[in-house]
Amino acid sequence: MTTVALDVQGGDLAPDVPISAAAHCTTRPGCPRLVLVGDRERIAAGLAQAPHDASLLRLVHAPRFVPMDAEPRAALDAMPDASVLTAARLVRDGEADALVSAGNTGGVVLACARTFKRLPGVSRCALGAVYPTETRRGDKQDPFSLILDAGLTLDVSAEDLVGFAIMGAAYAQRISHNPAPRVALLSNGTEASKGLDAIVAAHGRLAKVPGLCFIGNVEGLDIPRGTADVVITGGFVGNIVLKMLEGVAETVQHLLRYAFDQSLINKAGLALLAPTLRELKKTTDWQQYGGAPILGFDRVCIKAHGRSSPRAIKNAIKVACRAVDSGLVGAIAEGMRTVTSTAESAL
Amino acid sequence: MTTVALDVQGGDLAPDVPISAAAHCTTRPGCPRLVLVGDRERIAAGLAQAPHDASLLRLVHAPRFVPMDAEPRAALDAMPDASVLTAARLVRDGEADALVSAGNTGGVVLACARTFKRLPGVSRCALGAVYPTETRRGDKQDPFSLILDAGLTLDVSAEDLVGFAIMGAAYAQRISHNPAPRVALLSNGTEASKGLDAIVAAHGRLAKVPGLCFIGNVEGLDIPRGTADVVITGGFVGNIVLKMLEGVAETVQHLLRYAFDQSLINKAGLALLAPTLRELKKTTDWQQYGGAPILGFDRVCIKAHGRSSPRAIKNAIKVACRAVDSGLVGAIAEGMRTVTSTAESAL
Repeated sequence: MTTVALDVQGGDLAPDVPISAAAHCTTRPGCPRLVLVGDRERIAAGLAQAPHDASLLRLVHAPRFVPMDAEPRAALDAMPDASVLTAARLVRDGEADALVSAGNTGGVVLACARTFKRLPGVSRCALGAVYPTETRRGDKQDPFSLILDAGLTLDVSAEDLVGFAIMGAAYAQRISHNPAPRVALLSNGTEASKGLDAIVAAHGRLAKVPGLCFIGNVEGLDIPRGTADVVITGGFVGNIVLKMLEGVAETVQHLLRYAFDQSLINKAGLALLAPTLRELKKTTDWQQYGGAPILGFDRVCIKAHGRSSPRAIKNAIKVACRAVDSGLVGAIAEGMRTVTSTAESAL
Repeated sequence: MTTVALDVQGGDLAPDVPISAAAHCTTRPGCPRLVLVGDRERIAAGLAQAPHDASLLRLVHAPRFVPMDAEPRAALDAMPDASVLTAARLVRDGEADALVSAGNTGGVVLACARTFKRLPGVSRCALGAVYPTETRRGDKQDPFSLILDAGLTLDVSAEDLVGFAIMGAAYAQRISHNPAPRVALLSNGTEASKGLDAIVAAHGRLAKVPGLCFIGNVEGLDIPRGTADVVITGGFVGNIVLKMLEGVAETVQHLLRYAFDQSLINKAGLALLAPTLRELKKTTDWQQYGGAPILGFDRVCIKAHGRSSPRAIKNAIKVACRAVDSGLVGAIAEGMRTVTSTAESAL
């Protein structure tokens, strides 16, 4: 049975929401064993108020934590017993199989970097993020594409991009049940010659990777279209793309509110469209229920959104279990071996 | 009186649309003198069908042109008499004050580079582009922000970014009638320390430029919000941002069509909202009626969209006139002198 270490002190709504999410999770079929890492008294108090299956829970006391707005390096230096580091050590030592945290992103990544090992061949780790597109894909026909890196490595080499492609494809295959995810480099044109030097070089290398469904370059237009299932880019561009999508969702809401206030006719029109709009809003609220994988380490780590609801935390736990059970880390290691040997045989 | 050289062979709808746009323009008050550069017979045939004021028109024969899908360098090498090069030479030689073309973007830029001079202090030229935001600005309360570079210089140095900021501010002041445009660097966080090395270095330099309303870094979220009037970024990111906005507009249209087809109730709701949606569509059709300035040369050049309608061509002519009449090139030259002397006195 899989065991997930949950940093209950991480997140804007911590520790209450992670604790109640964990409690509820244990009452549902298929819940893994959970190690709740945080302040013992807060956890006990939280569990006292929520039905739960105690046989699935273990508590590990770690009262200090990295605040959401802290500078991660300084915070972790000052608190070697911080909840996220304690949870990561449990995973490193085999007491849990995966780490889940809704805490300070930099703190979670640094805790992984200080505790886990990078897999052989991985030059830089990456943060993956999903976003909704017009295209449906995979067994579940879901509308999400994966983009990485979402912000860990701003400036990337060709080697980094190749690694991100391998990791992203392995993740999409296992977590989105998409047997042959289409992987693409984000560039300023679809031709192989278009883009920054690192992209052009990565293009040449990815085209030769056996078993990878590499579809070449995609452009900004293809992001909402969903032309690729896995979009590969540097962390600087990934951050801008994801925040733009957030901004566009916000703008659409403002426009609707403005239209609503503008006239009675608009009010009536929007009332008729309400069910369709609710459906759409559910799709654009993706950030609330996704878990973002930190890829490239020898252990599984899922970063939940800082404002995660109980549902989002439960989803992150589910994704972490699926990553463990499907052998994601082994698949990435195997993929990186293939890339490295392909590159060597080309020399 | 200002004279504009119009490359009538440039654009997906050339030469018919540029010729009829020029003809119509001459019948309206405030039209500049126009030099129509292209195939003499095609121009004569076009003018024969459209009312025009011949006293404002001059024809310069240049039958060959750079096709929209041509590799610009090879095309210009093979055709020193191409319409866009001929038009640029007229501007260089003082027979016209500005160049307007809806042709192959690379061809227009290369024609400028081969014919005009870069202004002192300008390390790289930039292509500006406007896009609609939630914010209204300037004398005309228009919703457009300017972003540059839109794709000429993929990878940028701090010096390039500083130059883009000076050029963008000068353009927004003169063309958008915005006396103190807010200029920002696009980055992955608002803090001065955030971003690629070139951005962090440019931030430090821009903060010291006298008379520039530099508001620091903006993020992807701020693009649809319109936090800045002028967004400074490298051409790689600028291209992705602009194409993403195009893609999002496309997606919204697809969603509306899908909703319309889905149910009678949705059809009724959308019918009620039709006037508001038409208004919105007008705003998102910005690419059709904007002209994109190529900035940094000692002459004015406005690149109209390849699919320009007659209205878009007329708008590009108007923008070119305003750039000439407001002394845009002189203002950029003056701004670059200020930056260079500030940088020198800081040594």
